[in-house]
Amino acid sequence: LTADSGSFTLEEMKVAYVQFQPVFGRVAENIEKARSMMSGIDADIVVLPELCFTGYAFVSPQEAESYAESAGGGFSLKRMKELSENHNCGIVFGFPEKDGAGVYNSCAFVAPGAKTRIYRKLHLYYFEKDWFRPGDKPLDIFEFRDCKVGMMICFDWIFPETVRTLGLMGADLICHPANLVMPYCQDAMVIRCLENRVFAVTANRTGREKRGDFDFEFTGKSQIVSVNGEIISRGSRDKDETAVADIDFRTSREKAINRRNDLWADRRPEFYRMESDGKDET
Amino acid sequence: LTADSGSFTLEEMKVAYVQFQPVFGRVAENIEKARSMMSGIDADIVVLPELCFTGYAFVSPQEAESYAESAGGGFSLKRMKELSENHNCGIVFGFPEKDGAGVYNSCAFVAPGAKTRIYRKLHLYYFEKDWFRPGDKPLDIFEFRDCKVGMMICFDWIFPETVRTLGLMGADLICHPANLVMPYCQDAMVIRCLENRVFAVTANRTGREKRGDFDFEFTGKSQIVSVNGEIISRGSRDKDETAVADIDFRTSREKAINRRNDLWADRRPEFYRMESDGKDET
Repeated sequence: LTADSGSFTLEEMKVAYVQFQPVFGRVAENIEKARSMMSGIDADIVVLPELCFTGYAFVSPQEAESYAESAGGGFSLKRMKELSENHNCGIVFGFPEKDGAGVYNSCAFVAPGAKTRIYRKLHLYYFEKDWFRPGDKPLDIFEFRDCKVGMMICFDWIFPETVRTLGLMGADLICHPANLVMPYCQDAMVIRCLENRVFAVTANRTGREKRGDFDFEFTGKSQIVSVNGEIISRGSRDKDETAVADIDFRTSREKAINRRNDLWADRRPEFYRMESDGKDET
Repeated sequence: LTADSGSFTLEEMKVAYVQFQPVFGRVAENIEKARSMMSGIDADIVVLPELCFTGYAFVSPQEAESYAESAGGGFSLKRMKELSENHNCGIVFGFPEKDGAGVYNSCAFVAPGAKTRIYRKLHLYYFEKDWFRPGDKPLDIFEFRDCKVGMMICFDWIFPETVRTLGLMGADLICHPANLVMPYCQDAMVIRCLENRVFAVTANRTGREKRGDFDFEFTGKSQIVSVNGEIISRGSRDKDETAVADIDFRTSREKAINRRNDLWADRRPEFYRMESDGKDET
């Protein structure tokens, strides 16, 4: 898919992922690891994995809650905010969010001088349903250095409506923290980028986590994908890795894929029936 | 994605694709070729490519109209109906459909004793916009030998709403005639099958077609994909080929992908905004 080149000014932004294996429950140690891995990175936005400081395999909702922090500013949010100031960049990372009686599988965007943005995972995977409440806030986008950014977490990938919604809202870039155990997401995100002409950074964790009856193995292969479905960078399955890529994020705003086809204008929403019972929403 | 095995009776159906290179304008000859290629096939449903008897590269709307036939029963529809009776199977094939003043890029399903079903391509690719009217009838499914079948054509693949709509309507199997020139569709259809737990047969043409200013090269690689995103069969880029696969189409009705996740029940339509302006449809 090559868009006929439009009248956009070429303006780039550097985006990065940090892929690593957190040690369950060692929050300060995991933060230190992320901090150390970020020290060599010069980027505008850095994406870290889902639940990347706590670990994943909670053995009970009480345990998840014990690690949860308020979006208003718990331990890891404060550390990441400081780190974003030191690096003069935006950071997206996953954490268990406590709000009133509820604990959510959330991610935050923090940046110097910017309002903290929170996304609460809409589609919980398997045992997460025991540990977390499903997201209860709309998908949304925000601007950072002129780039329109949307966030989603891990299993949200399998529902095409997630990226579609963010894309139609105007997202240029999807920041996608993940703790993937299935092997399909990375290839699916290529299609998500292609069908919406958005960039995506998927930051996945690596390693194995055995706790209680759980034994999870995570698939790594963090990646940065372009609006054309090009895999700009893809990591290994099991190593600590970072990658940085320049993206000309404004190319996302041109939804034409040739002189006669435009991914937005060619949609036929009057023929789409997106309700689970097959009834038309319009 | 492995669904926990449910209580379904294992009941299979044979589906097939026929991949070949039509010669532009030689309708009777192309029908004979398809007939000959089908002679060795024992299947319940056979899918042929888009516009597979006329060829693709019309140089004018008048030319497209001159090859168009009525869904009520033109030359190729009659021949395919006879062939379906001889083989005791359903056949899906693409043809230019004339209806009143309009010509559509359509496909038909014909089968012995069954009502002919027509789908008019909703998303026209590039120059097709000069030759055809966009589809003006709803996506729909029908039953054949207990299998719920949906149809779509070629470029419809890039809009995830197409398979989603058919999937939510209850389709077990997507029949997908194509004349693909871009290289992405085959991999995208794997994700479409996975995200909707449907089977799909993509029948693509091969070869090059030079007419007027046009010079198209088609990508072949017809394929049959399972509800788990498994490529059961994929053809070559450039050869005449057929493939047959057994599918247990009822596995499509189980949308659970593990004990706790169900692709339908886990959707959060109240958070999806599928209008082009990002406004909520609900």
